[in-house]
Formats: sequence, structure tokens, C-alpha cells
Amino acid sequence: MTLEKAIARFEDVVGPEHVLRGERMGEFRDPFQPEGWEDHLPSAVVQPETVEQIQEIVRVAAQWSVPLWTNSQGRNNGYGGAGPRLSGSVTVNLRRMNRILEIEDELCYALVEPGVSFLQLDGALRDGGHPLTLSVPDIGWGSLVGNSLEHGITYLKYGQDFMAPCGLEVVTADGEVLRTGMGGVPGSRTWNLYRRGLGPSLDQLFMQSNFGIVTKMGIWLQPQPEVIMPVTVTVPREEDIVPLADTLRRLLLDGTIAGVPCMYNTPSAAAMVTQRSDWYDGDGPMPEAVLDRIGRELGIGRWIARISLWGDGPVVDHRYAKIQQAFGAIPGATVTGKRTTPAGARELEHPSDRVAAGVPSLDLQMMAGWRAGARGGHMDFAPVIALDGAELLRFLRTFRPMVEAAGLDFKSAIMAVSERSAVYVSGANFGFDDEEQARLVYDTMQRLVTEAGKLGYGNYRAHLSVMDVAADQFSFNDHAYLRFVERLKDAVDPQGVFAPGKQGIWPASRRRPR
Amino acid sequence: MTLEKAIARFEDVVGPEHVLRGERMGEFRDPFQPEGWEDHLPSAVVQPETVEQIQEIVRVAAQWSVPLWTNSQGRNNGYGGAGPRLSGSVTVNLRRMNRILEIEDELCYALVEPGVSFLQLDGALRDGGHPLTLSVPDIGWGSLVGNSLEHGITYLKYGQDFMAPCGLEVVTADGEVLRTGMGGVPGSRTWNLYRRGLGPSLDQLFMQSNFGIVTKMGIWLQPQPEVIMPVTVTVPREEDIVPLADTLRRLLLDGTIAGVPCMYNTPSAAAMVTQRSDWYDGDGPMPEAVLDRIGRELGIGRWIARISLWGDGPVVDHRYAKIQQAFGAIPGATVTGKRTTPAGARELEHPSDRVAAGVPSLDLQMMAGWRAGARGGHMDFAPVIALDGAELLRFLRTFRPMVEAAGLDFKSAIMAVSERSAVYVSGANFGFDDEEQARLVYDTMQRLVTEAGKLGYGNYRAHLSVMDVAADQFSFNDHAYLRFVERLKDAVDPQGVFAPGKQGIWPASRRRPR
Repeated sequence: MTLEKAIARFEDVVGPEHVLRGERMGEFRDPFQPEGWEDHLPSAVVQPETVEQIQEIVRVAAQWSVPLWTNSQGRNNGYGGAGPRLSGSVTVNLRRMNRILEIEDELCYALVEPGVSFLQLDGALRDGGHPLTLSVPDIGWGSLVGNSLEHGITYLKYGQDFMAPCGLEVVTADGEVLRTGMGGVPGSRTWNLYRRGLGPSLDQLFMQSNFGIVTKMGIWLQPQPEVIMPVTVTVPREEDIVPLADTLRRLLLDGTIAGVPCMYNTPSAAAMVTQRSDWYDGDGPMPEAVLDRIGRELGIGRWIARISLWGDGPVVDHRYAKIQQAFGAIPGATVTGKRTTPAGARELEHPSDRVAAGVPSLDLQMMAGWRAGARGGHMDFAPVIALDGAELLRFLRTFRPMVEAAGLDFKSAIMAVSERSAVYVSGANFGFDDEEQARLVYDTMQRLVTEAGKLGYGNYRAHLSVMDVAADQFSFNDHAYLRFVERLKDAVDPQGVFAPGKQGIWPASRRRPR
Repeated sequence: MTLEKAIARFEDVVGPEHVLRGERMGEFRDPFQPEGWEDHLPSAVVQPETVEQIQEIVRVAAQWSVPLWTNSQGRNNGYGGAGPRLSGSVTVNLRRMNRILEIEDELCYALVEPGVSFLQLDGALRDGGHPLTLSVPDIGWGSLVGNSLEHGITYLKYGQDFMAPCGLEVVTADGEVLRTGMGGVPGSRTWNLYRRGLGPSLDQLFMQSNFGIVTKMGIWLQPQPEVIMPVTVTVPREEDIVPLADTLRRLLLDGTIAGVPCMYNTPSAAAMVTQRSDWYDGDGPMPEAVLDRIGRELGIGRWIARISLWGDGPVVDHRYAKIQQAFGAIPGATVTGKRTTPAGARELEHPSDRVAAGVPSLDLQMMAGWRAGARGGHMDFAPVIALDGAELLRFLRTFRPMVEAAGLDFKSAIMAVSERSAVYVSGANFGFDDEEQARLVYDTMQRLVTEAGKLGYGNYRAHLSVMDVAADQFSFNDHAYLRFVERLKDAVDPQGVFAPGKQGIWPASRRRPR
């Protein structure tokens, strides 16, 4: 059988101990799918250690037309974790490629392999005494490369507009190695310093896509600021999202706030430190009175915004005063700042404050367990929306009833990924031992994505099981975008080796009728 | 003849008065090439007014395999102006598509057609009373779209890392219309607010390339700040570039300075307000003593850095004090700030200060006339370099002798396009009535680009006549970048209709042996 022949060759390339089959590949699936579901299961997991091994794996895969699914750490659990879109794919997992190749203190960047996690780079910065701060996501176990390639969100300076990655090395489907941007000039020192090259820049072509395997990436770091200050703002009523978001947008646009501030509604913020059963054990969505009580007792209101300030002391002080005044104009609002230093930030009590200050941890794994604790999963609906209070409220009033009609809580984490737009992440929680509840969530997600598309909202990212329907919403001019991307895909990966179906992009041989 | 048949069809599409031939297309050539040079001449110029006309032009061109060369205003004169790479191309000039489709005050962006110039949008912002500031290039006549697509440099907030453009509409080689990013979702409001979509982002694929004709673009604007303050720093010695650049980098990285600060050497800064003949009429490069005298008499030293500060008054004051202290530590340095408002900035005397404050004009056309005044041209060598003082000095010491050996002045304008890297623009001036001098400059440029490549420097942009040699420097792994781009090109433009040879990208039928 072709697949077995290819796997035997993979064993030759990486050593048999680095090709996982059966039980040993147990964790390389969607961790939140109930047992027995077989939608996103690999046939084997190959763990190379070098670029040359990846080149050889790709050549073998092309020869035998074996679909590969690549991940780095494979930790994006709200979107399907390490599972492949197409069951039977061979997963190329890059955890063994975990070298930090360079850390540069004056030009403030690092060059890393795909297996390097946020926690690992943070540790290396501390151990090496580098005066640099890393922008981190909520949970620190993920790969810098993997997170960046999937448009994952981090919260400090270079989180804004996804500016952290700069310069990629990629293995393409013909097994060749390509460097983007200035990396194309042998001996260039600006590969990881300048965001473009001469001619069209390819970096974003390798993000959220299936055009290559990224083997190295530059990542920008901030110099450690004198002061860093997580700030939280709470407001007492759901409709206060309007002045909260509008004030936030104005402060982002005028430069008072930078990075990626977020706004969490009550159940979303409560899930960081408690479980649903601590508050309510009814079946349907939590009643308003319970939400109000949680907001009061945890001091998170009906919305809590999380903002990071950093810089010279006097600048941070000016900005904080301005923030206090601006949000203070909302009736019932509270504004709390925790002025500290990069070293002091490690001692902050709330894990969310630590993330806001660039300190990664695993503490916010808690969020997945809102229902069912350690046996709890979540699936995220994440459309992009204008950072406009009235529109956010309209969105909430449209989608909250749809989610609650399915008996689920309407959680909201609104990440202002740019000064003008936000990702509205609405995670639905379920116990993954409860197949019926899981199915309900999966079905609800399909429906939310479709309804959002009708209203002009596209998703910033999609769970494996909704990738096709999410891509379908980009239907301008009879799906001109996807048709163009498919032509690119066929040109650079004619065998359809890389990640069939990722973000709705299928190779010609597996393409859906449209 | 095929070409004539196609041109007759173009006349049907846009009306015969909008197809220019012979004398009427006189300005659509490299404006600085001596008369009689025929390297970059179009066979006709077509000026459509609508997207539908462009679609039809592209379909006709594909049918008859007629190469098209697109420009918007066609004003990038240092790189070849409106001239096509391949003589005989039909130029599609988009000056008639000059509608400003949207200006949004709260979300701070505009949506424009390709014919809209910086001057036009600036005028519309003022006339409409919009409280917004536009980041502008040195000369305001260029197209917002054209400048952005060519990685043109502007100097305020969104000039940094080329962040101003957001969301494109493109006519592809099959005559279809595509919208990038969230523009793919019908009815989306975030097309011009969010920098990506679902799946790979295509925007940069249409920049410095020949993959489509861009027909609409979103552009980000800043809210008008309370205070805006152009700051200049001068240093007295050539080698002072080392502390000047290192101090600048640190202040960019820690957020004291934003936008795109620049450092001009003496002849480069002097060319903004004087001509070479005002100072020296010898044949070879200007002697050191003359450079020192110019520096003293114009108050520009041997280097003058131009920095923009903006924001709330107290923040600008803090930053200016910090800048004074930091640069003040360089012996002989002067620091001068002109604290004003957006309205007041229009009254600033020096055109360079006005550009730094977002006020466009044509005053800096002066720079092209350093030699030969109105009959003077320039050609720019523009590699990307780390923003590192020691390396900048090494670069200067390497390339200045090569330029001076050709009898030319070594002008330097170092634009810090990101916090970590700069474009080192070294413009060579010549009188374009002097064919021998022009030829010398053209030959010198070829040599500079090649020598720079050997040292690891790639060009950020290339003049028509050096595009091939500039692209050749990106030779990592046997030109893997260009080979990959050529596969994309063949897939999306199989007839080779769009801009053959642009940035070294030729269609299969015209490809050079490598």
C-alpha cells in the first residue's frame, strides 16, 4: 500500500522512533472531540529534526501523493489542536526542531525554529539576561511560529496588526528551501529586520495556508520598558460595551494605548479563574441575575477591558491619567492600574495581568474548563468586526440569542487586534465526554459562521470542522478570492501534498464542486 | 498587425480621445532619459475611467497577447517615472480614476481609486473639515495607490513598516475582480480596517509585482494630534552617523520616536533648497572643505536627521526633552524642535519640515535639480541596511569611493522605514541633456547594485534599467524566490499580459536564461 511504503521511507529519514503510530500518536488529534469521532485523525505522525529531513519528507510525500499536515506544537485547541483537516493525513510535527538560533539585544529580535514555544523563548531571554520583552498569547505552550502562521493573537506592542513575525524560511512542495524578503540575498543581515524584499512579498502567502512548511522565522521583541502597567476597566451593564469600545478605539488611534487590548464579558472573564458550576448549575444559559452577581462578586462587571501600558514612567503616568478620565466618564466604571516593572510583572497575581505584561504561563488553560473542568473543551466562533461600540452591541444582540437558543452561555472576548478592528471570539464550552453536547456545539458553530457571513462578517480563523463553511463566506464575485488562491495552490503544490482542505483550500484532486 | 487591432479595441472601450499615441504620450516615458534613448517607451497610452473598462482592456490584451504596463500617476521619477520596463508595452494610466470613495472620521481611513494623489486627498481632508492627518512622501503629486504598491516611503505614523494601505480591489489577468482580505465577504465593513482575511493574505502579492491591476485601496489616516513637532538634529562630522543612527534606533525601539525618521548627508540636504552650482563648479565630487562649508552655512552639518513627534502636549514635551538629552550627548550636535499644531504646520518655512508634519507640496522637486536645474535628473540606488551606526559607516566607506570614482557626489538619504532597518537612498544626479553623464550614472548604478548584492544588501526598489540586476541579487538557493514567483506568475497570468519584466519577473515567453 502506497501509504505504508511512504511511512517506511519516513522512518528511514527520521529514524523509526520518530514516526508515531497507533497509541503513540494519541495526542495528535482534536483534543476536544469526543472519543470515537474520526473526523480529524492522522495515519501517522513524523517528527523531523532538521530542514533536510523535512525536504526529504516532502519529496517522498510528493512521489507517493501522501497528504501531509504540518504543525509545530499543535496547541491551538479551540480550533482543532493538532488534528489534521483530512483524516488519514500524515502529520509532520515540528516539536523536535526547537532551537533558538539567534537573540539580538540591540536590534531586538530572535530567529527561531518552529518547535520553540513562548515559554521556551521567555525562559531563554531570562536565562541569558536579555533586556527584551516578548508579546505572548493567553497560554504559553504554543509555538511562536505556529501561532504566528495561524494569525494567533498576542497582546503587547508587536501583537498589534500581527507585526511580530519578520522573515521566513520555507520548504516548498518541490522540496526546495526558500527564504522570504531580504533573506533571498545571501549573507543579508536584514532578513529579520525589514518586512519586505524586492518584488512581491511572500510571507503572508505561507500563513493560514498550505503552500509550504516554515522552518525558521524571525520574531520582533520589545526592549524592556522602564514601567509596565496592566490596566483593567469594568463597566456594570451589557450595553456599556458601546462607550467602552468607542473610548478604547479613540485611545488606540491617538496612541494613548498600543498593543492588543481586550474586552471580556462576564462569563468569559469569570472562566479565567472559576468554573461555571461555581455559579450556576442550571441547564440553559445563565440568567441575567447570575451574570450580574458574578460581575459584582469577582469585580469584573458585565465587561472588563484589559489594557497594557508600557514605556518611560512619565509617559505611562500621563497615559494612565488620560485613561482614568476617559473611561471614568462611563457611569459605574472602575479603572485599576498595576504599575510595575518587567521583573515585578512576574509576581502579578492574576494570570491575565501577567499575560498583559508579557509573562507567559499555562494558568489560563483554566478557561477551557468552564464546563466539565479537565474534561471540558471549547470551540471558538471568531469573526472580525469594526471596533465600533454600536456595531458590537448590534452583533451581540444578534448572536447572543442564537447561542442561548442552543442552551449555551454567550461568552465574548473582543480582541482589538488593530486600532480599527477586533476579533469577536465567542467560545462555546462543552464537556467532551458528553457527545450530544459536543454535537450541539459543533452544529451551532456551523450555523453561526453562516449567519455571520450573511451579515458581512468573515472569520479570522476557523476550527477544522468549519473551515469550508468559513471559507465559503468569502464569496465576493463568485468566490474570486478562493479561485485565485486555488490557482496559486495548483502552481506551487501540484501533487496537493500540503494540508489538503486547510482554510477551505483543497488541491485540484480533492476540490469540492462549487 | 496585432498591436494595432488591440489598440483599435482599446479605443472602442475608453473612447479614442483617451488612447494617446505619438506626441500625446510624450510624458509617459522615463523623464530623465536623454532624448533618443528608446529603452522604456510605450506604444500607446490608454486611460480608462472605470473598473469595467480595465476588465475589458485586460481581456483584449490577453486575447492578443499585448503587454500592458500600469501606472497611476506615474511619478516615481527616480526609478523611471511613467516609462514601461519593456518598450512597446501599452501603458494603462489610471489618472482619470481619481475618485475618493470614502473618508471615515471615526475609524480614520479613506478608500481611494488609483488616480488620487496625496495632494488631492490632503485637499479633500481640509475642504471636508476632516480631523485627520495623512502621511505623505517628499513630493505630493504621486498617487496614494501607486506609491503604496511600489513600497514608496512616507514619514508619519503609518509610514513605518508601510502600514498605510489596507484592503485592495484588483483586476486579475482573466479580467475578473478580486477583493483582498475581508473584502472577500460581501457587505463586509472591515475590508479597510483589518489587515488580513481567512487563509493567505494576497495584498503584498500585488505590490512591486505584475499580478494584477489595483483599482481601489483603503488607506489609514491618523487622527489629528494636539501637537505636531518636526525635530532636526545635526552633527558636524561624517563619522557621527554612528552615534546618530544608534541613538535614533534606540529611541524608535523604545517608542520615543515613531514614523519614519531620516538622516540626510550634506549634499542630500543641501539639494532640498540649493543647487550644486551654488557651492561648487568643479567636475569631480565636491571636496571635503566644500561639504563642511555647506554644512556650516546651511546649518545642516554633515548629517541632519529629521524626526516627527506628535501627540498630546505633555507626551511630546517629554519625548522632545528625551531626544534633546540623547542626541545632545554627541559632541557638536544641535537639536531643534518646531512645536506646532496640524493647522500651524502648513506655515512651516522649510518644505522638509512640512513633509514631516504631513503637509504635501511640490517644493522638494528641487532635489532633482542638484545638477542642471530643470534639466536635471536623478537615479537612486536604494539598498536596505540594518539601522546600526557601525554598519552604516562601513557601507558609506565602501560605496562612497565607488561613486566618487565616477566623478559623482555621494548623496545619502537614510530612511528608517522600520525600527530596525533603513533604506539607504543614494541618488546620483545628472543633467539629462548630457548623454555621456547620464550613461555614466546608469552604468554606475548597475555596478553599485551588483557590488551591494555581493555584500548581502538587496535593493528595496529598482529603477527600470536595473530591475533585472537588482532581482538577480536575491540568489539564495539558486534564485529560489524568483523561481517560486515565476510559478505564481505563470499560474495567474499565463499570457504574460501584466508588466513583463517588472522587478525582474518575466512571463514564461520572455524569460531570460538563468
